[in-house]
Amino acid sequence: MKIDHLGIAVESLETALKFYAQGLQLPVTCEEVVEDQGVKVAMLPVGESRIELLEATRPDSPIAKFIAKRGPGIHHICLNVPDVAAALAELKAQGFQLIDEKPRPGADHCLVAFVHPKSTHGVLIELSQKMQE
Amino acid sequence: MKIDHLGIAVESLETALKFYAQGLQLPVTCEEVVEDQGVKVAMLPVGESRIELLEATRPDSPIAKFIAKRGPGIHHICLNVPDVAAALAELKAQGFQLIDEKPRPGADHCLVAFVHPKSTHGVLIELSQKMQE
Repeated sequence: MKIDHLGIAVESLETALKFYAQGLQLPVTCEEVVEDQGVKVAMLPVGESRIELLEATRPDSPIAKFIAKRGPGIHHICLNVPDVAAALAELKAQGFQLIDEKPRPGADHCLVAFVHPKSTHGVLIELSQKMQE
Repeated sequence: MKIDHLGIAVESLETALKFYAQGLQLPVTCEEVVEDQGVKVAMLPVGESRIELLEATRPDSPIAKFIAKRGPGIHHICLNVPDVAAALAELKAQGFQLIDEKPRPGADHCLVAFVHPKSTHGVLIELSQKMQE
């Protein structure tokens, strides 16, 4: 298992990159718009993980709602696991609350599922598994 | 650079370990009390990083205040850098706000310093450098 990425909700990628790219001197490998999530993403690798900066592209996107409620900050942690379905089954058997009962396709050839912050002590946790290409 | 650890503020280590250790099946390598910080810590390695669960040992500790204000959740991100003093100088030169102007001794033979969340878009960031032993 490893930390795949940390998602950070920001009001503006351009301003946030001044700190994360210029200030911390992290490389930026990719910027893209994920239209169905209403989000613009910049990815900055850090060791075996990466920081994902997330800017909302419309007021009803999950990132816009998160910022309206809590302000900018860490939105979620994504952990790579070998088998998302098995991890979900184990968590469910132990009585933890899931957002996704089944893995679903995510970006970058991954299967993903979210665990509810009620069960994780306030942290939105994404589980992710690389699919065979 | 790499993610050294993620600090997660929880109300009870015992309850949080039910999810992070039993649910996610992460190993627990260490539990200790850091009395001057008013915190009890459990460390769970994940790849090259680790999750640090933080429980307050008294009501005036930073973790107790954080939970009173925001509820349990991610408290800080710690990034390993090769030279904390150089990183602080670069951030200061670029106009970013620091909590620690100079590196100070942290746990585990490290020099550490915190960057202010106002400059990091809502994330409390700790910079850490392993000292020669």
